[in-house]
Amino acid sequence: MSGLPPITIRRARRDDVGVIVAMLADDPLGRARERLETPLPEAYFKAFEKLDRDPNIQLVVAQDGEGAVVGCLQLCILPGLSSQGASRALIEDVRVATKRRSQGIGEQMVQWAVAEARAGGCKLVELLTHNTRVDAQRFYARLGFQPSHVGMTLRF
Amino acid sequence: MSGLPPITIRRARRDDVGVIVAMLADDPLGRARERLETPLPEAYFKAFEKLDRDPNIQLVVAQDGEGAVVGCLQLCILPGLSSQGASRALIEDVRVATKRRSQGIGEQMVQWAVAEARAGGCKLVELLTHNTRVDAQRFYARLGFQPSHVGMTLRF
Repeated sequence: MSGLPPITIRRARRDDVGVIVAMLADDPLGRARERLETPLPEAYFKAFEKLDRDPNIQLVVAQDGEGAVVGCLQLCILPGLSSQGASRALIEDVRVATKRRSQGIGEQMVQWAVAEARAGGCKLVELLTHNTRVDAQRFYARLGFQPSHVGMTLRF
Repeated sequence: MSGLPPITIRRARRDDVGVIVAMLADDPLGRARERLETPLPEAYFKAFEKLDRDPNIQLVVAQDGEGAVVGCLQLCILPGLSSQGASRALIEDVRVATKRRSQGIGEQMVQWAVAEARAGGCKLVELLTHNTRVDAQRFYARLGFQPSHVGMTLRF
């Protein structure tokens, strides 16, 4: 047995949307971007429906032994011509509930995503992490990711 | 009239795969990753078929006035919960034929992709560019992209 807590990674359901958005908003960068209101803006549910029926995308949550959702991650597996026509995996929106950090939950989710990418025939997993998220960069480096690229963004 | 050459951006077809792979391979990083052989390995055509039927993905080429393919770009528009359920756009595999660089072709392709992302309701366009591609980073900065993130990759 490893020391990791008993976490289950499962596909997100519509009734997880609220807790996922709360995790996205509970963050210095996310706070300004989300609208954590009751009821939650319909746009989140519409986006959930769109991604849920998308065969490239898996939005998953980490659920603890008590059934609480304590993390989320979105994995996209994208076909492309480069690297001899290998698909690429893109990891996005990785979050762990504030109170449950440093317990290996993020690691389990990312390792799940990497295994899924490998099983899906990808040769490359990529992600963008904000320049200010130095802890995240260290975390991904520990899991074997290289800071090989500049992640460039344009916001409207 | 701007000084840009008369370039048409159009969806890639199966018979463009060879010239696209040649552009991907004609690059210090791409050379080691591609197999530019005659006939072209079947894996490239299989990947083309997969991406061509993917509703999230547009692989486009830039065609000049003589009908020659002189550039390529892949655009993915991906739903997600963050930023109030806005989709995100990912630009990948941007290449311009060596002899046709510095003629505004890359700019036209990227501007096309940005316009397409905007029309598709995205609030964010993102891309990864290798740390060594300093010219590319300057090019994207000129088009309004910020070097806001670290692009991390894991290769199998």
